[in-house]
Parts: sequence; structure tokens; C-alpha cells
Amino acid sequence: MASDVNINHSEKALELLKADAEKILRLIKVQMDNLTMPQCPLYEEVLDTQMFGLSREIDFAVRLGLLEDKEGKAMIGSLERELSALHEASLKK
Amino acid sequence: MASDVNINHSEKALELLKADAEKILRLIKVQMDNLTMPQCPLYEEVLDTQMFGLSREIDFAVRLGLLEDKEGKAMIGSLERELSALHEASLKK
Repeated sequence: MASDVNINHSEKALELLKADAEKILRLIKVQMDNLTMPQCPLYEEVLDTQMFGLSREIDFAVRLGLLEDKEGKAMIGSLERELSALHEASLKK
Repeated sequence: MASDVNINHSEKALELLKADAEKILRLIKVQMDNLTMPQCPLYEEVLDTQMFGLSREIDFAVRLGLLEDKEGKAMIGSLERELSALHEASLKK
């Protein structure tokens, strides 16, 4: 059925985005686990760049009609909360 | 037909990517046309960021199976040639 392909693309898009979000989450966790170590000065730059890349992918998927806008916003929102938790933790260190 | 939706998505993806590439091209042209003016120091940063965003969209479309890898590379390649032409021109100014 035509809509199968549509669901297929939407599912695949969501799968790819979740995998990319997971990569960023792992980057955040690595930093969180190594707070006692001298912070790599570029980690915020790396995370910002990755977040920008993911947001462009999400925007692209939404424009393609493969993802609901609110779903994309939820994905970015949860990562941003993790990022600010990391930022807080690194300030308290 | 199932493949109609697939073509539809591919066509739409290509359309979106071409429109985004066009936006970058216009940014380059504006700089090219205003070489005699003091260069906005951030224009290279802006263009780099936009190129990074577009490359992530292209990579996403390729991973989704909506775009041929070589088509994406051709798109980025032609913009990079425009960028180096701009860079050359600004050095000769």
C-alpha cells in the first residue's frame, strides 16, 4: 500500500534521528562521567555543532513530512536538558 | 503505486536540498557583489555553518535512501567551488 512506504520512510527517519540523538547523549555522558578530569575545552563546541547538525536533520525530516514538528522539538528539548545538567555539573565541580 | 510515494519523497528531498543550496549560493553572491565593501568578518563563519547544515541534510537524505550519494556530493562540490572562488576573489581585493 502506498502509505506503507510513507510509514517506512517516517520510521526510518525517526530511527536515524534517534541514533544520532543517542550519539550526542553518549558524548554528554562521557563528559559527565569525567567531570573530575580536566575538561576538554572544545567539548561544548563539539556538542553545539552536533546539536546544530541534529536540529537541521530534524527540520529537514519535518519539512519532508516524515516527522511531526512536536516530536522533533521533544527530541531536541530532552537533549538540551541533558546539556544544561552537564553544564551545571561542570560549574559545581 | 508504492514507488510513487518513494519518488515523491525523493523529489521533495531533492527540491528542499536544492532550495537550501540556493540560499547558500545567494549568500556567496552577496559577498561576491560587495567585495569592495569591508567584509563582514563573520561571513565565512556563517557560510561554513550553513555548509555544515546542508551536508548533514544531504547525509540524512542519502541514509534515508532518498538521494544518491554522488548527487549529494555533486551538490556540495559545486558550492565548495563557488566558496573557494569567493575566497580567492576576496584575497585579490
